[in-house]
Amino acid sequence: MNYLTLLHVYTSVNKTNKMSTTINSLNWRYAAKRMNGQQVPAEKLENILESIRLTATSNGLQPFTVLVIEDKETREKLFKSAVKQPQVVEGSHLLVFAAWKNITPKQIDTYFDLVYAERGMEKGALDQYANFLKEHFAKQTETEIFNWASKQAYIALGTALVSAAEEKVDSTPMEGFNPAEVDEILRLAEKGLGASSLLALGFRDDHADHLVNAKKVRRPKDKLFVKI
Amino acid sequence: MNYLTLLHVYTSVNKTNKMSTTINSLNWRYAAKRMNGQQVPAEKLENILESIRLTATSNGLQPFTVLVIEDKETREKLFKSAVKQPQVVEGSHLLVFAAWKNITPKQIDTYFDLVYAERGMEKGALDQYANFLKEHFAKQTETEIFNWASKQAYIALGTALVSAAEEKVDSTPMEGFNPAEVDEILRLAEKGLGASSLLALGFRDDHADHLVNAKKVRRPKDKLFVKI
Repeated sequence: MNYLTLLHVYTSVNKTNKMSTTINSLNWRYAAKRMNGQQVPAEKLENILESIRLTATSNGLQPFTVLVIEDKETREKLFKSAVKQPQVVEGSHLLVFAAWKNITPKQIDTYFDLVYAERGMEKGALDQYANFLKEHFAKQTETEIFNWASKQAYIALGTALVSAAEEKVDSTPMEGFNPAEVDEILRLAEKGLGASSLLALGFRDDHADHLVNAKKVRRPKDKLFVKI
Repeated sequence: MNYLTLLHVYTSVNKTNKMSTTINSLNWRYAAKRMNGQQVPAEKLENILESIRLTATSNGLQPFTVLVIEDKETREKLFKSAVKQPQVVEGSHLLVFAAWKNITPKQIDTYFDLVYAERGMEKGALDQYANFLKEHFAKQTETEIFNWASKQAYIALGTALVSAAEEKVDSTPMEGFNPAEVDEILRLAEKGLGASSLLALGFRDDHADHLVNAKKVRRPKDKLFVKI
């Protein structure tokens, strides 16, 4: 092997190493329509949850709670309220992203107390910023806050899809559910929460899922992006 | 080195390999407040854009357009409409996630034509599904569609944050901007679009950014998650 061949081999290997895990994960994943009941191992689930926890949100407020539902009976109830999508019960876990319907001064204080504690800052050091947020949210309706909080939960949903795929866990995001019924089953309203999206976690059923080998369809770059 | 030591070394290495790239990326990233003007290399930018393109969206509709703005003059105009956040001009690219304000029957037909072409299906094979979507969106107001489309764009925003961090590119998501002004500068309204979020891409300024070494603050798992 001469020098140039060696260089060529080295460059090829290097190119392979530089391939994006995120892109590979996204190419691997699809929204499984049928799952096989196999359990998502605890370590993989914890990695997915940790990715959700680390997700960036507006002002760092993380204005949502994520219900991690393994209990079969609860998922069977939700199944009926989610247009009987099989993944709700065929997966091993169902995540419910529940957005906050209100951002109270108390919640903002709790957040800043966490910032002070984590960063070893003097309590009250960010009062001006905290007051700005309190005034901002006081002016908003419950619907406006819920919409905004839901969008933050969708950032986390995006992370969860990448993270699950990296773990080779299938994930199916769902908007097709009756929000009032889901909120009722999970008693979300009394906690100031509303279901904004569901995410079934499990493993694809290679035999039952007719979309298992379907080509991924996405708009080409020149349609999706406008470069200026 | 005896067998047990070797086994121990092997196991440690294996554990390291099993670490999650997504978690590592999210731990590395933060919302840089100041950037140093360094250019994001084309290959890294293309990986970030490809991740956005591959992101899952409701029904696969990808109801948004992403403006990739490198032009300095345009970014200087946007800077004034984005409460003068320095990253808008100190980064090398600004992404504007522009959500669709309407989902027309024509757009749905375009989408299904792409599905038929990509999957080698007979044209019209999914007419029932297409008609369901057409009826669904015909019943919605422009505000409802824009909110829904914005949420889909936020899934992509979540992906972009992970992808950029994997590329060791800093990214700062921004909701702090005047939507009417941004829409005006980029002539979005006439294309049926509205700016839903901005994402500055570039490299952190280690000296000017006072948050460069700040500890990441996130709610602990037992506060964010409820296990059922």
